[in-house]
Amino acid sequence: MWTLHHFTLCPFSRKVRIVLAEKGVEFTLEEELPWLKSDELMDMNRAGQTPVLSGGKAGPIADSIAICEYFEETIEKAPLLGSGAAARAEVRRLTAWFDQKFYAEVVNPLLTERMFKRLVMRASPDSAALRVAARAMAVHLDYIEYLLGDRRWLAGSTFSLADIAAAAQLSVADYLGGIDWRGYRDAKTWYATVKSRRSIRAMLPERMAGISPPIHYDKLDF
Amino acid sequence: MWTLHHFTLCPFSRKVRIVLAEKGVEFTLEEELPWLKSDELMDMNRAGQTPVLSGGKAGPIADSIAICEYFEETIEKAPLLGSGAAARAEVRRLTAWFDQKFYAEVVNPLLTERMFKRLVMRASPDSAALRVAARAMAVHLDYIEYLLGDRRWLAGSTFSLADIAAAAQLSVADYLGGIDWRGYRDAKTWYATVKSRRSIRAMLPERMAGISPPIHYDKLDF
Ligand SMILES: N[C@@H](CCC(=O)N[C@@H](CS)C(=O)NCC(=O)O)C(=O)O
Ligand SMILES: N[C@@H](CCC(=O)N[C@@H](CS)C(=O)NCC(=O)O)C(=O)O
Repeated sequence: MWTLHHFTLCPFSRKVRIVLAEKGVEFTLEEELPWLKSDELMDMNRAGQTPVLSGGKAGPIADSIAICEYFEETIEKAPLLGSGAAARAEVRRLTAWFDQKFYAEVVNPLLTERMFKRLVMRASPDSAALRVAARAMAVHLDYIEYLLGDRRWLAGSTFSLADIAAAAQLSVADYLGGIDWRGYRDAKTWYATVKSRRSIRAMLPERMAGISPPIHYDKLDF
Repeated sequence: MWTLHHFTLCPFSRKVRIVLAEKGVEFTLEEELPWLKSDELMDMNRAGQTPVLSGGKAGPIADSIAICEYFEETIEKAPLLGSGAAARAEVRRLTAWFDQKFYAEVVNPLLTERMFKRLVMRASPDSAALRVAARAMAVHLDYIEYLLGDRRWLAGSTFSLADIAAAAQLSVADYLGGIDWRGYRDAKTWYATVKSRRSIRAMLPERMAGISPPIHYDKLDF
């Protein structure tokens, strides 16, 4: 049985949880606070980051993309990269967009200002950094609206890893009060559909001690 | 015929150039200065980043990992991910390590301080930032030595995308004078072997106007 070493508000951990649920892989969860760099985490992943998956035939697997591609290669059920090399390139492009660009510009600043400073540093958030993140958030929501202008899902006509990567990042931003959904009708409709999938819905009741999400966070109709 | 829109000192562009050369894909190069965000670049890649590959059947492909996986899927020659799902996970983990962690901690600060500030901002480098990058560089070289302690190549017994990703990042750091190879015997031997591959050697004579590399940069025996 696999064990996923995760952190509740880590979007990369969330992405892997959704992929495992979609693929029907059973696993147990073990919480890590990545900034503590526990010996156990460092032994499994020298990068000192969540997520890490242990307990399978493959030894600990680190890095969320390596984990997702591993299950895409080994489990046929619920293909998440699409079919055809060009379609798969588009899924991977958008997955990297949310994992890297959206994380760096929006989610990481929100985690720093609203989670890490509050719970770990006991400092107040930097309102200038939050304003920059809010402006970046608006640009990303515009881009999601643009994509959904002629696509049913973010990377095309089928649900894919791009939707999962986006939902994982957005759900953390939403938990931290970073999203004002007004004015983004298509993005909101897409996110409501995504939220209603069992793989994602199952994660939303979870709470991080000391930080409450806004009331709309786990509502399917928000 | 493919066109690779690249930037000489962009390590992600270098990674793709090496992959295309290893796979025997013909392409022409078109230089972009990513900070200028040219209309042409923005039209092909809304992320406004190099590299982008255009001109093939697949329409412009952005994101270096999407490009590398595309050719791994479509060209059998020179497999770069290894065989077996576990081996492939290890290649992808290390590729992400160099693309993300090494880039963020070492290459990006070097590019900012030694290239961007000099050529674009006409400002002096921040020596504190350079010291932090140098300390991170040493940690990464130690990790490379550790990996090579019982492996011929970074991810195992065969040359892989992990070696390419590492060589691409290291070659840019080396160009910018960021590597003191003394004391890293295994890393140096590995890098000498990597440098002597035609796909990589071919890139080393290239110069960026206004910035000269140290003399050892393109020597195979350094
Ligand atoms: N490339 C990694 C990134 C994982 C990552 O950044 N995890 C964060 C938590 S959301 C972390 O562990 N940060 C601590 C650190 O980087 O030291 C992946 O996709 O798994
Ligand atoms: N995830 C991208 C990262 C590419 C990247 O960061 N490129 C840099 C040049 S080395 C760039 O275009 N930076 C400008 C920017 O991010 O705005 C990839 O792997 O292709």
